Amino acid sequence: MITTLSGAEVWNLSTLSAACVGIIINTFHDDGEPLIASMAFSGIAFALTFSLIRWLGDVFMKANLKGRDMSKPKKIEIPETMGAVCAVVYLLTIIIFIPFPFYKDIVAATSGGGNEESVIGPQFVQTGRSLHRFPHNKLASYLSAILSLQSVVLLGIGDDLFDIRWRHKLFIPAFASIPMLVVYFVDYGVTNVVVPVQLEQYLGKMVNLGWLYYAYMAAIAIFCPNSINILAGINGIEVSQSLVIGGLLLANDALSLYVAPSTPFPHPATDPHLFSIYLLLPFMGVSMALWWHNWYPAKVFVGDTYCYFAGMVFAIVGILGHFSKTLLLLFIPQIINFIYSAPQLFRLIPCPRHRLPRFNARSGLLEPSVIQWQQPPPKPVALLMDMLANLPLPLLKVEKNSTGEVVKSTNLTILNLWLVWFGPKREDRLATELILMQALCGVLGLFVRHQLALWVFRQDNRE
Amino acid sequence: MITTLSGAEVWNLSTLSAACVGIIINTFHDDGEPLIASMAFSGIAFALTFSLIRWLGDVFMKANLKGRDMSKPKKIEIPETMGAVCAVVYLLTIIIFIPFPFYKDIVAATSGGGNEESVIGPQFVQTGRSLHRFPHNKLASYLSAILSLQSVVLLGIGDDLFDIRWRHKLFIPAFASIPMLVVYFVDYGVTNVVVPVQLEQYLGKMVNLGWLYYAYMAAIAIFCPNSINILAGINGIEVSQSLVIGGLLLANDALSLYVAPSTPFPHPATDPHLFSIYLLLPFMGVSMALWWHNWYPAKVFVGDTYCYFAGMVFAIVGILGHFSKTLLLLFIPQIINFIYSAPQLFRLIPCPRHRLPRFNARSGLLEPSVIQWQQPPPKPVALLMDMLANLPLPLLKVEKNSTGEVVKSTNLTILNLWLVWFGPKREDRLATELILMQALCGVLGLFVRHQLALWVFRQDNRE
Repeated sequence: MITTLSGAEVWNLSTLSAACVGIIINTFHDDGEPLIASMAFSGIAFALTFSLIRWLGDVFMKANLKGRDMSKPKKIEIPETMGAVCAVVYLLTIIIFIPFPFYKDIVAATSGGGNEESVIGPQFVQTGRSLHRFPHNKLASYLSAILSLQSVVLLGIGDDLFDIRWRHKLFIPAFASIPMLVVYFVDYGVTNVVVPVQLEQYLGKMVNLGWLYYAYMAAIAIFCPNSINILAGINGIEVSQSLVIGGLLLANDALSLYVAPSTPFPHPATDPHLFSIYLLLPFMGVSMALWWHNWYPAKVFVGDTYCYFAGMVFAIVGILGHFSKTLLLLFIPQIINFIYSAPQLFRLIPCPRHRLPRFNARSGLLEPSVIQWQQPPPKPVALLMDMLANLPLPLLKVEKNSTGEVVKSTNLTILNLWLVWFGPKREDRLATELILMQALCGVLGLFVRHQLALWVFRQDNRE
Repeated sequence: MITTLSGAEVWNLSTLSAACVGIIINTFHDDGEPLIASMAFSGIAFALTFSLIRWLGDVFMKANLKGRDMSKPKKIEIPETMGAVCAVVYLLTIIIFIPFPFYKDIVAATSGGGNEESVIGPQFVQTGRSLHRFPHNKLASYLSAILSLQSVVLLGIGDDLFDIRWRHKLFIPAFASIPMLVVYFVDYGVTNVVVPVQLEQYLGKMVNLGWLYYAYMAAIAIFCPNSINILAGINGIEVSQSLVIGGLLLANDALSLYVAPSTPFPHPATDPHLFSIYLLLPFMGVSMALWWHNWYPAKVFVGDTYCYFAGMVFAIVGILGHFSKTLLLLFIPQIINFIYSAPQLFRLIPCPRHRLPRFNARSGLLEPSVIQWQQPPPKPVALLMDMLANLPLPLLKVEKNSTGEVVKSTNLTILNLWLVWFGPKREDRLATELILMQALCGVLGLFVRHQLALWVFRQDNRE
């Protein structure tokens, strides 16, 4: 692996960084321009991550953070856990970025100008909004987001170091979501949700979910990182799917912001969508730098750290931005993969340590990987498997011996299923097709969300 | 190394935990009792850390996080970086603890009672205090403290994994202090300091340090962790010195709180001291559990992570509690060690990778470790060394060859100096004596601070 930057790369990255620094300096006027600054910070984060991934390759190999690429003719070792580099650069970026969204407020506070005399009625107390002209609550929620992300990175690195057992892994994002939930509880505490029109006659317009709302938030935070972590195993797939989801979330934010300013007052959804953009732009920056090195043929692996980190960014943006339902629409392939994997995850069917497709050294293509059944499966499982294998669109490929007992069956991931359906493929081809599918599902999801939302809810955010 | 808990240990730790849970449940009444809850949380943190250190011993060894104890007849390998376990339990504890100091405010906000109608004048805007009855600024500063601690742990683990170079290490705490400084800038921004009486005629009663104040805070944050990290190398010394400093800081807080309630209004120093206690109590809890396993003969090593983590806890408490000058009085041995080490740190004199005392296998005692001079030192350095060696109380031991050139000189740490002064000692004896010295210096420091403060400042906190 190359551990230095080429002359052209040095030149390009330096130019990019210098331009970004220039842009940031130019945002210090009037009310500041946090959105522009955020883009520039993301550029710098890209350049920094790109360089660090190169420079740290050897260091990672020496520290035993390395893995063997199983889907290549030569199974060479390459650095593993490079997602940690991404994540640390990302954290540094959003920490340094903290003052920018508050530039206006800081200037107002320092100059002593502004709306000192305005008195705010008690009706705003519970909503946690507009309490004082300095948006302390926005700051607190921003900080809680960073805390949760930092927690998931810390625990993710632990996972990559110690190879934590699967059933323990599941709870890493749960622990990491604690800071966010606690701050939500302390500082905001709104647990009301809008009721779909069809149910209004039974439940009223709003229903207070109480602690169930916290359970829901925790469930989102557990699902997103883990679902990315199980749709993994071929070069570039983890980062690519994250880039697609991140890109679509940004599109959704842009759409929401584009139509928001037409309302006379700042729309209540403006702030959460800005917040979402500030968290997502640098994420895209660091992820692209990682993608560059992780796409087929991979020069580095991302590690579980990256999957947790990426999933947590999405979970936080969705939860604190109050668009978790929209978020889930972008996770359709992950949801399908999770449901499809469930028989293995819950050990109805044996689950090997890795379920990635099998590399056929002769053809150079990936084929569905299989479970070898030492003993024939129990009756109900065998029945289920037969049923799945004999559907018009088979969801499983099984191999039986002469007595009709299952001896082999494919692993239950959509990567394998794709290969069952469309035959053996080269690794990058498989990744590309799956990512296109992800993008298509996501675009459809957003379309549904914006076109059909009015059918179930009285008003869209956009109104 | 034993990796399980004995029956008695299980019983004791379970009893302690159960009692603490009971206590916490009992604090949910009236205005809540955060101080009691904090003590109980610290008990649980102790039990958890104690158990985890045992259970994870093997896992750490397997992940190559291990080191050889050089000061024992049998140089066996034991788990390293156990400070990371401490730190993670600590972080989890203070994150879960977040709602407790705000219990009163949450209850008030939820019930809708309280001082809704009070209008706050613009004179309070800049101080960041009493803006709204929900103390958002307290929450933000608490969160920023956790963020900085989490950052230092993340970077500390990186250091333990990759063995970062000394000149890079120095900046780990600097990076980690960024969240705290940024939030201070955004949310608080007071950079005035009180001027000593003697200088008032030149500077006025208060002077605004501006960005210099941030540099000062960063300097404290860089000094505390690094100074603990270089007063290290024998069993138990890192944790013991941290326990002494933590204990004295708690004594200082208690002293300040004990006299505060006599004033008619809540004293402005009450909150910072409570904040300090909330951060220090669980620190004492996790550190005691680590101490148990790290004291002579050590069963685990603490790693650089612990030193950074401990130093950062003190720095944050001192900075955000606004008693950084008092804090420095408790770091006198560390300051002396730093100044004494300076010629080696700045490479006037060669600095080997480790400067810990040398173990004499025959006597079983520690002796001062020495630098072997391949070439004689340059003239000015040789002169300086001669001077130090010939003081009435020699600060150095040198060995010369027949031509009068230095061939050996002791490493410049106070551990070695202590051995030069008082002769070879067993490892635990040396640690005990140094810790007693640390405690004595600290008590003297606090005495000076509280007795003599009135000489330089118009009023003590206690008034």
